[in-house]
Amino acid sequence: MMLKKGFRILGIDDGPFTFQARGRLGKVPIVGVVMRGKDYLEGIWVSEITVDGNDATDKIAEMINNSRFKSHIRAVLINGGAVGGFNVIDISSLHKQTGLPVITLTRHKPDFDDIEKALKAHFKDWKKRLAVLRRHRLISIPTGRNPLYAKSTGIKKQDVIEMICASTKRGNMPECLRIAHIVASAIVRGESYGNA
Amino acid sequence: MMLKKGFRILGIDDGPFTFQARGRLGKVPIVGVVMRGKDYLEGIWVSEITVDGNDATDKIAEMINNSRFKSHIRAVLINGGAVGGFNVIDISSLHKQTGLPVITLTRHKPDFDDIEKALKAHFKDWKKRLAVLRRHRLISIPTGRNPLYAKSTGIKKQDVIEMICASTKRGNMPECLRIAHIVASAIVRGESYGNA
Repeated sequence: MMLKKGFRILGIDDGPFTFQARGRLGKVPIVGVVMRGKDYLEGIWVSEITVDGNDATDKIAEMINNSRFKSHIRAVLINGGAVGGFNVIDISSLHKQTGLPVITLTRHKPDFDDIEKALKAHFKDWKKRLAVLRRHRLISIPTGRNPLYAKSTGIKKQDVIEMICASTKRGNMPECLRIAHIVASAIVRGESYGNA
Repeated sequence: MMLKKGFRILGIDDGPFTFQARGRLGKVPIVGVVMRGKDYLEGIWVSEITVDGNDATDKIAEMINNSRFKSHIRAVLINGGAVGGFNVIDISSLHKQTGLPVITLTRHKPDFDDIEKALKAHFKDWKKRLAVLRRHRLISIPTGRNPLYAKSTGIKKQDVIEMICASTKRGNMPECLRIAHIVASAIVRGESYGNA
């Protein structure tokens, strides 16, 4: 895709939540970080979504569409296929609502048998959530010692790999996601801990 | 002082607040950002202080002393001599409580006549707040097109200048303060605006 130096990318992560928040419609912050490539942080937004709810896709679309950074953003990266527990992100809908390529990333290969069990135990609409999570082909991204796993829409596989590599500074997680994780964690806990 | 490459620095800024919060003991977030020099964000903490209160110095000291980053931090930078309106920071006390060099920075040369008027109009203890703000010598830092103004304790003037220059990426504000401003602004407003 020949990324311009200083291309803008948006990384989204959620804050940690306690299991007490489950089933009580607890809220958890989600944080978006806009960076130029891997080097320069340009802006941050903070919103919140419902733990195990259904509002993540539309909340994220709304934040993107209202953001003054929108016209500059080349792609949206999300840490995981769901935020706030099983608040599943429908990347097709997010792509349609925003017009932007959307990529979800995970450190571990999703185990859909385990996910199905967990969804069945907690949700009447488990089939619907599982179908959204299963949709789109999983690709592995050869970054660092450990690969990352990605699903994407609105962007070619080769471009996903190029974009992730160009936005990663250390380790294998793109800088915008690493910082989104730190901010979301600090909002919930007072001080940030752990890796995205 | 011969800063090691990758020296750690902590930058602190407060979030914006409305004038309605004045006199009602409203709270405003303060955000600390730990960076290695100007390039790598390592951690963030979030706390809150009282608008126009007296708790900023002790709250900041507590956050620093409880932080897992403390032993790595070489200096504390604060955006302005007060946070949350006139919640004045006593840098001598902060230095004594934490053992770390403390530097406050402002873009504009403080006008102590104006500050005195504002303090007199709002605070019974205006003399005490003014005395803390006046304490320590103001130095100008020759960065970029516009100088910055600094007060400091526990560190030599020449080292203040070296440290600020080594932790600034673009413009004249150290990167840890620029990012602390963005995070604090996003927590209050949902999306970050403006410059530190």
